[in-house]
Amino acid sequence: MPRYRIDLEYDGRPFHGWQRQKNALTVQEIIENALEKIVQMRVQTFVCGRTDAGVHALQQVVHFDLEKELTPFRLCEALNYHVKPYPISILCSAIVDSNFNARFDAIQRQYRYIISTRYAPPTYRKGLIWHIKYPLNIQKMQEAAHYLLGQHDFTTFRAIQCQAKSPIRTIDFINIQQCEDEVHIHIGARSFLHHQVRSITGTLVHVGRGQWSAERVKFALFAKDRKECGAVAPSDGLYLEKVFY
Amino acid sequence: MPRYRIDLEYDGRPFHGWQRQKNALTVQEIIENALEKIVQMRVQTFVCGRTDAGVHALQQVVHFDLEKELTPFRLCEALNYHVKPYPISILCSAIVDSNFNARFDAIQRQYRYIISTRYAPPTYRKGLIWHIKYPLNIQKMQEAAHYLLGQHDFTTFRAIQCQAKSPIRTIDFINIQQCEDEVHIHIGARSFLHHQVRSITGTLVHVGRGQWSAERVKFALFAKDRKECGAVAPSDGLYLEKVFY
Repeated sequence: MPRYRIDLEYDGRPFHGWQRQKNALTVQEIIENALEKIVQMRVQTFVCGRTDAGVHALQQVVHFDLEKELTPFRLCEALNYHVKPYPISILCSAIVDSNFNARFDAIQRQYRYIISTRYAPPTYRKGLIWHIKYPLNIQKMQEAAHYLLGQHDFTTFRAIQCQAKSPIRTIDFINIQQCEDEVHIHIGARSFLHHQVRSITGTLVHVGRGQWSAERVKFALFAKDRKECGAVAPSDGLYLEKVFY
Repeated sequence: MPRYRIDLEYDGRPFHGWQRQKNALTVQEIIENALEKIVQMRVQTFVCGRTDAGVHALQQVVHFDLEKELTPFRLCEALNYHVKPYPISILCSAIVDSNFNARFDAIQRQYRYIISTRYAPPTYRKGLIWHIKYPLNIQKMQEAAHYLLGQHDFTTFRAIQCQAKSPIRTIDFINIQQCEDEVHIHIGARSFLHHQVRSITGTLVHVGRGQWSAERVKFALFAKDRKECGAVAPSDGLYLEKVFY
């Protein structure tokens, strides 16, 4: 029974996230339905990052086993055919070691959060960015982000409903860049807590707008108290960008 | 009666172009309806570039006269309020000289055509790029583009239904760049013929894919014959990017 890995991209706007739900459209359901059409039986998929409703993926990684062996190229073509007309694209596919696990083997996940700071409303980027209308002080944000690097208890920056056993995570890097009228927050870690990137982003924006000092982020982190989180950024601007194994 | 200039951005996907039509949604209709709501009377608008159905604008320029004087900021805010929920955004507005003409005073229009050359289908860029799946030889395309620079009779590269009196135009520059898995064709001229950018793009893609030699573009141009045009690229990847006065 060969194990397959597929890498996919999707526009999160029409979906209630990755994970299958009873009464809502999800990416997992579309992928598993497409697989069922191809191999004529139910296939269970395992994902690298269970993105939330509205969150996008530039590289999402999924693994599953098929009873029938298909060439990766044919699988890719067949999947892209069957996921139409949804904004999901299978970028590549491979037969991998039967121990490969898309979720547990990832050694780094990178997310990108895109904020538009221009005054005018978005048009073709609507739902693909967080539009905040005001300029941000990138230097202050980077200074605040520095406190979050390395291993910490991120209780302040995770959702109340987060199911992870431990609130401890290690952030490898946070790079903040002004790209014309957008601010990009690029962040990497082996794994993230539920709403961690959006909680960090929302809080850093408080600093960028001058409502918080950079130091306050340090106190918020050390408080280990969800109530000390600045804000949770909306899903619109969040992209799972890259996964390393 | 003050004359106003507004600069706007729009996502062309839902529109049948700029120009008002009887049974189709157009940007002009939405802008003029919004103006009517603001000043309580019909206002006629004049545009820099009458974009076709599905063509996008990053900077479209429009002028019109209002009987009532409004501050440019208030006009901008009111227009953005009234064009909702359409993907149109008024970027800025100004009171200009009463002789200013958005169409005739433009000294350079710049268009950008975006082609995606990756194999996988597009997701969040669907309708915003031309997906051609194959790599392009940029150097050959640039070589072919060179023949089109300067003043020429562009009969080969204009739509049969083009209403311009003369087929002669002067192309200031054509820059072709590979940007990751996209090819950007950036082209500037005082004015363009109907379908000129899309006809040039479609033809250059023939060269980029190796179906045409670069020299054949020269012969096509000199033929002054619409039948010699390589192909017309779809509207999806075309953006009116910048206008200079």
